[in-house]
Amino acid sequence: MPIKEKIAFYLEDIETPLGKLINLSITGLVLLSSVIFVIETYPIPDYVRLNLETIDWAILLIFAYEYLLRLWCAPKRIKYILSFYSIIDLIAILPFLTGVVDISFVRIFRWFRILKLIRYIEGKTLFGKISSEDSVIVARILFTLFTIIFVYSGLIYQVEHPVNPNVFATFLDAVYFSVVTMTTVGFGDVTPSSQAGRLMTLLMILTGIALIPWQLGDLIKRLVKNANQVEN
Amino acid sequence: MPIKEKIAFYLEDIETPLGKLINLSITGLVLLSSVIFVIETYPIPDYVRLNLETIDWAILLIFAYEYLLRLWCAPKRIKYILSFYSIIDLIAILPFLTGVVDISFVRIFRWFRILKLIRYIEGKTLFGKISSEDSVIVARILFTLFTIIFVYSGLIYQVEHPVNPNVFATFLDAVYFSVVTMTTVGFGDVTPSSQAGRLMTLLMILTGIALIPWQLGDLIKRLVKNANQVEN
Amino acid sequence: MPIKEKIAFYLEDIETPLGKLINLSITGLVLLSSVIFVIETYPIPDYVRLNLETIDWAILLIFAYEYLLRLWCAPKRIKYILSFYSIIDLIAILPFLTGVVDISFVRIFRWFRILKLIRYIEGKTLFGKISSEDSVIVARILFTLFTIIFVYSGLIYQVEHPVNPNVFATFLDAVYFSVVTMTTVGFGDVTPSSQAGRLMTLLMILTGIALIPWQLGDLIKRLVKNANQVEN
Amino acid sequence: MPIKEKIAFYLEDIETPLGKLINLSITGLVLLSSVIFVIETYPIPDYVRLNLETIDWAILLIFAYEYLLRLWCAPKRIKYILSFYSIIDLIAILPFLTGVVDISFVRIFRWFRILKLIRYIEGKTLFGKISSEDSVIVARILFTLFTIIFVYSGLIYQVEHPVNPNVFATFLDAVYFSVVTMTTVGFGDVTPSSQAGRLMTLLMILTGIALIPWQLGDLIKRLVKNANQVEN
Repeated sequence: MPIKEKIAFYLEDIETPLGKLINLSITGLVLLSSVIFVIETYPIPDYVRLNLETIDWAILLIFAYEYLLRLWCAPKRIKYILSFYSIIDLIAILPFLTGVVDISFVRIFRWFRILKLIRYIEGKTLFGKISSEDSVIVARILFTLFTIIFVYSGLIYQVEHPVNPNVFATFLDAVYFSVVTMTTVGFGDVTPSSQAGRLMTLLMILTGIALIPWQLGDLIKRLVKNANQVEN
Repeated sequence: MPIKEKIAFYLEDIETPLGKLINLSITGLVLLSSVIFVIETYPIPDYVRLNLETIDWAILLIFAYEYLLRLWCAPKRIKYILSFYSIIDLIAILPFLTGVVDISFVRIFRWFRILKLIRYIEGKTLFGKISSEDSVIVARILFTLFTIIFVYSGLIYQVEHPVNPNVFATFLDAVYFSVVTMTTVGFGDVTPSSQAGRLMTLLMILTGIALIPWQLGDLIKRLVKNANQVEN
Repeated sequence: MPIKEKIAFYLEDIETPLGKLINLSITGLVLLSSVIFVIETYPIPDYVRLNLETIDWAILLIFAYEYLLRLWCAPKRIKYILSFYSIIDLIAILPFLTGVVDISFVRIFRWFRILKLIRYIEGKTLFGKISSEDSVIVARILFTLFTIIFVYSGLIYQVEHPVNPNVFATFLDAVYFSVVTMTTVGFGDVTPSSQAGRLMTLLMILTGIALIPWQLGDLIKRLVKNANQVEN
Repeated sequence: MPIKEKIAFYLEDIETPLGKLINLSITGLVLLSSVIFVIETYPIPDYVRLNLETIDWAILLIFAYEYLLRLWCAPKRIKYILSFYSIIDLIAILPFLTGVVDISFVRIFRWFRILKLIRYIEGKTLFGKISSEDSVIVARILFTLFTIIFVYSGLIYQVEHPVNPNVFATFLDAVYFSVVTMTTVGFGDVTPSSQAGRLMTLLMILTGIALIPWQLGDLIKRLVKNANQVEN
C-alpha cells in the first residue's frame, strides 16, 4: 500500500489500534482546545492564561498540519476541499492562517472545531448499527444537543462579550443564554445589546429552535420507553 | 387574439420570454420597494432619502397602472375585484390613492405588496410539480417564513417607531421583535408600549404563532431527511 | 302542555321563533354585561359609569330571575343544581346575592357568565352536524379561544388591578398578559406582583397552556386545508 | 414466615390492612415533611419554627430507621443499595447522617423524599389495571406533574433564597419560577442571579421542558376525551 493511501486510511480508520490512537488523539485535542476557550472566559492569573494560549497555538498548528496532510493524500483534491468536514477543518484553523491580521474576530470560527467530533460519532453509529445498541442513539442525541449548545454559546460569547461584558461575563452566561433562548423560555435577563448580537440571536433562534425541543423530546421519550421495558 | 386577452395572458404567464420578463420585472419592483422601506428606517443623508422616496412613488405609479390594466382586461370585473390577489394589489397602491390625505398611517399597508410574490412562487410550484424537485418545496417554505416575518416586522415598525423610537429604532429591531415573539421566545427587551402596538402584537401572536414553528419544523425535518438520503 | 314544561321547553329551544327570541336575548344580555365590564376598566365620566352600573344590576336581576325560573321548572331539582351549566348560572348571579357584603371580590365570578354562551354554540353545533358545515367547527374553535382568553383576562384583571394599577391599567393590558402568557411568549413587561396574582397566573398557565396552542393549531390547519381545497 | 420476610412483605404490601397502615403512614410522613419545608419558607414565630424543626428531625429519624430495616431484610443487599428507590431513600435521610457538618447545603436533597410517593402510586396503578379505571391514569399524571414542580421548586429555592432573598422570598415564588420556566413562558421577573442558580436553571430546563407540556397535553386530551364520552 503506498504511503498516501496508508495515511488516508489511518486518518479515517477507527478499528485498528493505530487508527483508534490517531483519531482519539485528535478528538482529545478538539476537546482540550474547547476547554481552554471556556477557561479563558473566566478571570485567571496572567501566567496561566499565557500557558493556555501557548497550548492553544500548538493545537492550532497540529490541526493545520492535519488539514494539509488530509489534502495531500486525498484522491480528488477539489472534491475534498469542498466537502462538509473539510470546510469545517479549514474554518477551525483559520485563526492560525489569519492570526497576524485580526485574531479577535476570526477566533469565532474556532468553535466549529468541535463539529469535527461528529465524524467520529458517525463512525461509532455505523458500528452501533451492527451491534444494534440503543445507547449509541442516545449518545448521539446527547452529543448533538451538546454540540449545538456549545457552538452557539461560543458564537454569542465572541460577539457580545466585548460590548456587553457585565451581562455576558463568563462562558456559563452564554450557555445560559443559548439554552434559555433555544428552548423558547426567553427570560430576558441576559439579552444581546449590539446589532451583531441581535443578528446572531435571530440566526440562533431560526436554526436552533426546532432542533432543541425535537432532540430533547426524542431523548426523553426514548429514556421513558427504555425505563418501561426494564420494568416489564 | 384580441388585445385584452393578450395583456391578460402576459400578466399571468411565466413561460414565454415576454411573460417571464414582465413578471420578473414586477417581482423586482416589489423587492426594490421593500428594500427602500428598510433602508429608510436607518439614518441616511437627506438627499438619499429624497431620491429613495422619488423611486418609491414611481414604483407606486407603476403598480397603480398595473392594477388598472388587470382590472380592464379581466373577463369578470366584480369577481376580479373581490379576488384575494386583487385586494392585496389594491391595498399595495392605497398610499398612492390616499396620499394627499394622510400618508403616514396608510403606508402600513404597503407591506402587503410583498405578498404579491406568492403568486409567482405558486406558478413556480406548478412547474416544480412537473419536475418533482424537492428544492421548490423548501424554497416555498423559506419564502413563506420570510414573508410572514417581513410583513409583521413592517407593521409593528410602523405602529411602534413613532411612539417608541429608542426601542424600535431600526427595521432590524422590528425583525428581532417579530422573530422573538412568533417563536414564543419572548425576551421582553423589545416590547410595544402603545395600546395600538399591543393590539398589533396580539394579532401577531394569535395569527403567527402556529405558522412559524410549523414551517420551521417542516423545513428542518425535510432538510434532515434530504441529508440522510444523500448519505445513503 | 303544562306551564312548567312550556317554560322549560322555551328556555332550551332554539328552533321555534319564541325560543330563538328568548335565547338570543339572554345571549345578548351576557355579551352586554361583558362589554360593560370592559368599558368600566377605562377612564370614563362618572355619570356614564353610574348608568352602566345600573344597567349591569338590571341584567344581574334578570339572570337571577332566569335561574329561579329554570330551577322551578326543572324535573329533578337536585340534579339540575349540580349540573355544569347550573353552577355557572349560579356563579354568574352570585354578586347579586352577596352584593351587600363584599362586591369587589365576588365580581370576579361574573366573568363566568360568558361561559353561558357555550350552551347556544353547542345547540348550533348539533344543527351544524345536520348541515355538515365546516364553518360551524371553525366558529366553535374561535369561540372557545375567545372565551378562554376573555375569562382569564377578567380574572387576572380583578386580582391585579387594585394592587398594580399602572401595569394592569385597562382590560386590554389583561388580554395582552393572558395571550402572551398562555401562548408561552412571556415577555415579562406585564407581570403580576401580588401573591394572589401569581397563584392566578400559575392556574392560568397550567390549565390554559395546552388549550391555546392546540386550538390555534387546529384552527390554522383547518383554514389551510380549506384554502387548499378551494384552490383545487 | 420468618421475621425478615414478614417485615419485607409489610413494607411493600398495600393490600392487607397492616400493609396499608404502614405505607399510608410513611406517605403521610413524606407529605408532612414537605409541608413543614414549605411552611418554614414563610415568616413564622420562632417557637413555631422550633417545633416544626423538632418534628422534622423526628421524621428524619423514622426514615433513617426505615432505611436500615429495608436494608436488613433485603434478600440481596448490594442489589438493594443500588436500586433506584433505595438511592432516593438514602438521599432523603442524608441531612440526618451529615447534619453535624453542614446542614444548609445537604438539605437540598431532602426534596427527593417526595419521590418515595411514586412507589405507592405505581402500586395503585397495578391495582388500577385490574379495575381498568381511567381516573388512576389521570391521578398518576397529576402526581408526576406535582412531583416535578415540587422537587425543582425546592431545589431552586435552596440554591437562590440565600443569595436572592427578595426575589425568591417564599416557596410560592420558587413554584412560580419553576412553572413559568418549565412551560417555557419565561417572564423573567423572577430569575436566578448566582452561578449555581443558573446551573440549576439549565438542569431544570433541559430535564423538565419536555416533561411538563407532554404531561399537561396528555392530561387535557384525556379529560376532553372523557368529557366527550360523557356527553355521548
